[in-house]
Amino acid sequence: MRHAGSSRLPEEAPDISRLSDSLEEAIHWLSRYGADSEGGVTRLLYTDSWQQAQAALAERMQQAGLEVYYDEVGNLYGRIEGAQPHLGTILTGSHIDTVRHGGKYDGAYGIAAGLTALLYLAQRYGKPRYNLEIVSFCEEEGSRFPLTYWGSGNVSGRYSPDRVPDIYDDAGLSLKEAMLAAGFCSQASRAWTVRREDLRAFIELHIEQGAVLEREGSSIGVVQGIVGQKRLTFEVIGEANHAGTTPMAWRRDALAGAAEMVGYMEKLAQSYGPPMVATVGSLTLTPNLANVIPGKVSFTLDARHSDGGELSSFCSEAAAGLGDLAARRGLILTSHEWMNAEPVMMDAELTGWVEDICTQRDWSRVRMFSGAGHDAQVMQSICPAALVFVPSRGGVSHSPDEYTSAEELAAGVSVLTDLLYGLAYDKEGAL
Amino acid sequence: MRHAGSSRLPEEAPDISRLSDSLEEAIHWLSRYGADSEGGVTRLLYTDSWQQAQAALAERMQQAGLEVYYDEVGNLYGRIEGAQPHLGTILTGSHIDTVRHGGKYDGAYGIAAGLTALLYLAQRYGKPRYNLEIVSFCEEEGSRFPLTYWGSGNVSGRYSPDRVPDIYDDAGLSLKEAMLAAGFCSQASRAWTVRREDLRAFIELHIEQGAVLEREGSSIGVVQGIVGQKRLTFEVIGEANHAGTTPMAWRRDALAGAAEMVGYMEKLAQSYGPPMVATVGSLTLTPNLANVIPGKVSFTLDARHSDGGELSSFCSEAAAGLGDLAARRGLILTSHEWMNAEPVMMDAELTGWVEDICTQRDWSRVRMFSGAGHDAQVMQSICPAALVFVPSRGGVSHSPDEYTSAEELAAGVSVLTDLLYGLAYDKEGAL
Repeated sequence: MRHAGSSRLPEEAPDISRLSDSLEEAIHWLSRYGADSEGGVTRLLYTDSWQQAQAALAERMQQAGLEVYYDEVGNLYGRIEGAQPHLGTILTGSHIDTVRHGGKYDGAYGIAAGLTALLYLAQRYGKPRYNLEIVSFCEEEGSRFPLTYWGSGNVSGRYSPDRVPDIYDDAGLSLKEAMLAAGFCSQASRAWTVRREDLRAFIELHIEQGAVLEREGSSIGVVQGIVGQKRLTFEVIGEANHAGTTPMAWRRDALAGAAEMVGYMEKLAQSYGPPMVATVGSLTLTPNLANVIPGKVSFTLDARHSDGGELSSFCSEAAAGLGDLAARRGLILTSHEWMNAEPVMMDAELTGWVEDICTQRDWSRVRMFSGAGHDAQVMQSICPAALVFVPSRGGVSHSPDEYTSAEELAAGVSVLTDLLYGLAYDKEGAL
Repeated sequence: MRHAGSSRLPEEAPDISRLSDSLEEAIHWLSRYGADSEGGVTRLLYTDSWQQAQAALAERMQQAGLEVYYDEVGNLYGRIEGAQPHLGTILTGSHIDTVRHGGKYDGAYGIAAGLTALLYLAQRYGKPRYNLEIVSFCEEEGSRFPLTYWGSGNVSGRYSPDRVPDIYDDAGLSLKEAMLAAGFCSQASRAWTVRREDLRAFIELHIEQGAVLEREGSSIGVVQGIVGQKRLTFEVIGEANHAGTTPMAWRRDALAGAAEMVGYMEKLAQSYGPPMVATVGSLTLTPNLANVIPGKVSFTLDARHSDGGELSSFCSEAAAGLGDLAARRGLILTSHEWMNAEPVMMDAELTGWVEDICTQRDWSRVRMFSGAGHDAQVMQSICPAALVFVPSRGGVSHSPDEYTSAEELAAGVSVLTDLLYGLAYDKEGAL
């Protein structure tokens, strides 16, 4: 590892108050696209509110002097060409889409902060050595289609606009149809390559979506890696029967069985200890009537751990335990794994660099794993990537109540500005 | 108690094969009204299929020589006037409405059997001493409006067409509007009194909707009483949070709490022993997403026991236990009781009479409590009432798979015929 960090910081610390004013205005401005009357924001992939947000961002970037372009799937870029463009590109940003009725910081913060940092650097230091770009990824949340990372997944080559998955939204529209309707991927579209080969680094700034930083009283989360994640759906089949005429001893109650399973998995996850987490977040009964013994219950398991081996071992143990519980009650249990993401380590050198910046600029920080998935983990497959967190009040996430104070947001953009300077402007540059 | 029973049986046993043919035809015929393509039957109160079924029944009864009339709420009667009409009326029947996608025996059997018995008796024995009537109650299931026993409830005076509850169906139509639209309760309607003052007995024949008779290998269920029933809705409030970023130790998971509660109530009901039954039949999560810790869970409790004291004691113990579980997890628990029906004992003399008939005619029988509610329990408040069960294959109920064999159906109608003879024809008559 090369000695990076402090030597590459600009001597002068970023002007926090200037960064903060500009950032606050940008977040507030962006939150108007897809805003609802209850303070929530909904920008689902390729919908009108999503299109309006991307178009408004494109206009704003253009007016600020960036070179603006979309790729075929709708990722939006703003570019400052470097003095030596052949050296490659330093990229920052996050995703523009939201969950339904989400908050105004998730994704948007990384875009607003990236734009703020780029414009600050360009104004203060002029043309960078490397190309410096901001990206507004089209999709990360999986809120409209059953798919996540459609934006960064195309940039990294995991997906391709030539092979659009055959998936549908709640209204029965396919991803391909929605993409075409929004004006992307048509033959007439400008032939930008979606997969990027020129990236030298990707930096994502994001709210934590958890309460670790708040509880630790720290400004910056230095993300070492992103936990592995498995998601499964279990189906428990018993026998629907009359709630009044079926004695307790004759029942094959799918809910009573599922309830025991939920308790079993909670205890098992606790026995593994942190950072193991396991959640039954969705559970559905059939027929779900007060006076009928439930005949069928479906429920999901979301299990995460920073260690892939521990995660697998948890899931195997859970499946065996659940099978025993089902057998004891005469229930039929089936399961289906529909997500299996290995843990991802972020780039160690970039991560060390973020820590150095915190030390030099006196930001309190915590090294941590992210329990949530982020575009940075996908980008890490094609270039060194870093993920930096700022606190989320109460750990609230995916809700209009999501909140991070102006000071906390400013600390993040200051770290990002220092990091981008070192990567794109410093004579060493990149990694 | 007077000596009833065997002395009142007609010397000649009912002609089972004649009864059976007629009954089978009637059940099959009635099941066409509201039939769906998957073998289910749906006749919700005052809907088109319901109106067609009542109109067809009215026509059939008229053609068979009965005097036919509706009351103001849509209960349909067929009457054979007695030789001494001032003595009062012996009534049999059940309800014409069904659950959504129900079976063809629930309710319909009691109507088809009543009509079969009436016509058989009239043909065989001519005019009865007492008036003999069949009723097709308009509503019992509570499937369209949140209300049960609207039919027998009006006949018994529990409800009245002057004070229609302000309740609505799923489409937002009120009970009053639906009733008017079906042509009932208008000023122009014939001024029959809904509440009956002339009833000397009510007999209801019904499928068991449980598996007791099948398991015991018995033909007839002699119902001593109907269990008391309480229904409550519990709401558990925790904290919705990110499934990946919230350590197990910091969670206030409403589903994990509710699951423990479901298990607690199951064990508690088992510890009370039969006939205690307790069911969580409906359970709903908010937000119900795989990657979000459930913030809120609502679930119902349906608890039944033949002894009102035991039932109350179970519910108190459950509420206390659930409160402790909630407190231990930092969850907020609220509850709302929305049904509280005391156990009802059927008329002891009539019940004894049914047993005598079984003995004389050599039908195997079981004395039992009904775990389900029936019109007979409502009618018992204004006249001696009896409820007689025949087996349900596998105990299946409220489903197109509901089934009772032709022999089993015939045994029931034979008992009903004997009973109606004794009540309406015998020189002693009634009770």
